[in-house]
Amino acid sequence: MFTFADTDFSQLNSTLQELQPSKLFILVDENTHEYCLPTLLGSLETSVPYEILEIEPGEEMKTLNTAAQLWEILAEFEADRNAVLINLGGGVITDLGGFIASTYKRGIPFINIPTTLLGMCDASIGGKTGIDHGFIKNIIGTFAEPKLTLINPDFLRTLPFEQLRSGFAEMLKHGLIADRHHWSNLTSLPELNADMLLPHIKRSYEIKREVVKADFHEKNIRKTLNFGHTIGHAVESCFLAGGKPILHGEAVAMGMICETYLSALEGLITHDEAESVIRNIQKFFPQIEIEQSALQTLPELMKSDKKNSSGQINFSLLTGIGACGFNHNVSEENIYNALHYYQNLS
Amino acid sequence: MFTFADTDFSQLNSTLQELQPSKLFILVDENTHEYCLPTLLGSLETSVPYEILEIEPGEEMKTLNTAAQLWEILAEFEADRNAVLINLGGGVITDLGGFIASTYKRGIPFINIPTTLLGMCDASIGGKTGIDHGFIKNIIGTFAEPKLTLINPDFLRTLPFEQLRSGFAEMLKHGLIADRHHWSNLTSLPELNADMLLPHIKRSYEIKREVVKADFHEKNIRKTLNFGHTIGHAVESCFLAGGKPILHGEAVAMGMICETYLSALEGLITHDEAESVIRNIQKFFPQIEIEQSALQTLPELMKSDKKNSSGQINFSLLTGIGACGFNHNVSEENIYNALHYYQNLS
Repeated sequence: MFTFADTDFSQLNSTLQELQPSKLFILVDENTHEYCLPTLLGSLETSVPYEILEIEPGEEMKTLNTAAQLWEILAEFEADRNAVLINLGGGVITDLGGFIASTYKRGIPFINIPTTLLGMCDASIGGKTGIDHGFIKNIIGTFAEPKLTLINPDFLRTLPFEQLRSGFAEMLKHGLIADRHHWSNLTSLPELNADMLLPHIKRSYEIKREVVKADFHEKNIRKTLNFGHTIGHAVESCFLAGGKPILHGEAVAMGMICETYLSALEGLITHDEAESVIRNIQKFFPQIEIEQSALQTLPELMKSDKKNSSGQINFSLLTGIGACGFNHNVSEENIYNALHYYQNLS
Repeated sequence: MFTFADTDFSQLNSTLQELQPSKLFILVDENTHEYCLPTLLGSLETSVPYEILEIEPGEEMKTLNTAAQLWEILAEFEADRNAVLINLGGGVITDLGGFIASTYKRGIPFINIPTTLLGMCDASIGGKTGIDHGFIKNIIGTFAEPKLTLINPDFLRTLPFEQLRSGFAEMLKHGLIADRHHWSNLTSLPELNADMLLPHIKRSYEIKREVVKADFHEKNIRKTLNFGHTIGHAVESCFLAGGKPILHGEAVAMGMICETYLSALEGLITHDEAESVIRNIQKFFPQIEIEQSALQTLPELMKSDKKNSSGQINFSLLTGIGACGFNHNVSEENIYNALHYYQNLS
């Protein structure tokens, strides 16, 4: 179930009423502990005892090590199969918490309350959970649906600009792959702030949800959501391995630029269309500086991407502005061409 | 899908033909590597490249540490979502391998080829996967179905007596909870060897499968399969924590004796029935020596059992010979009574 704009948490309270948990666990990071948890606790109407599980913020925490600690804490607090985990945070918290919940005692119910723009219109929708391992993002994970995903737009106002922009990359993607009108609304925004973005979140959420509903296990159309992510994930893994993680949306913005260029190289869109898309992404996202030596490692990283098989790199590529295909096999030469094109952009 | 008595692996070959794997991985332990893998490889008709993943034998290997290594190896060999994992071994291999497969890249197909009696009539049926953590058995796991479970009875002949007897405990349980005739056939066996047991495996498998089919997620009747396991698992965890693991079936045999006595204490069966059941179990299973101090820790261990909620200990108890109820709340006093009864048996 999904509730949009539930500022008083009434849907959360009625879901808890239904689930009758034996105990509540609330997973937060230091930031959501400080900025979001008080709001949540102030609205929680339940006599069920709860425990707060806090982790440090950041993608670096989405590891097996953190997972092991969380499983242990649940066991120490004698969480049983009727315990409920509430994930209050961004994509790291919902990915990690969903994975913990879906594997602890073979699965306990969980609720996602995304607090970032990225979480609200992407990470918390679609039942993907996961942790990183060996610098590969989400290599361990499950498909598992939360009992409820609840969006409280008040949380957006607690976010720094870079976090808003990171989520905005996924919104742009939703427009690019499925809705030209959404794309044009978003790229016309004079600036990025919570109030400007709020009216557009619902459409992004709807696009993601429709695609996921049509193909939950990512056999076909769900793959279009990976537009920008084949290169984007590799870039993100590369910076993570180098000890200087960048935000998901920054990596995806670079990925979308490269993959838009690839779409033109492969003759799926015109060079004019590609240029217009790329110029619009550049309006919001500054160039990422990436060393030549790091660039060379990206295609290897792409091969370990979950979408790929038999050593071939499959891309989801634009077939128009607001349309996307998938399972495009691209030569390594063209991938390098796209990466070099990006490096020489100004 | 399930194939019984597939001595030439024809069903395996046709399943692989259907799945068209990008790569095969075969998980074995040192024993199944030596005694079972050559038979399997000799019958494998595929040009798909394969890798052997070997672990040491024993429950002590069913850890997060082993899981981490296996995930890493799959990633190193660039296993994609079309890779297939074949689990060739006992319950440790199928539990661990199923967990790895169901969480690597959010799930790749897997095939179970149980090589122990326990695996053939219990562990490999029913879609439960898991690893142990913090001395709690299967605390991390998933519900995931193999594409094929294949039973080759030839493997039974490679098993030492203790392993056969360990699996026999689960067969006895199937009779006790669901089929008086099966129970009486089994308890009439003059001795335990592969040839004596073979004719009865199918019935045990059928009982387990029917129960699982009726209630995959263990909301009600599947709980009857836990008869003997509430105390049995605690005993097993206790010996594992003490560094002297005992075989699953030995722990379950002790658990069944205690829980049969409990069934009589709770007035669900007569004391005469209980005595007859207990005498028959004792014919095959010697007494387990357990120290008084260890005995005191068992109820705490039971509380962390996955079947329990809100700190109460739920038992599945016999309501006859061949019939079982579930969700019986038993007082801690009666649990101690049952444990002391066992200690004083001769």
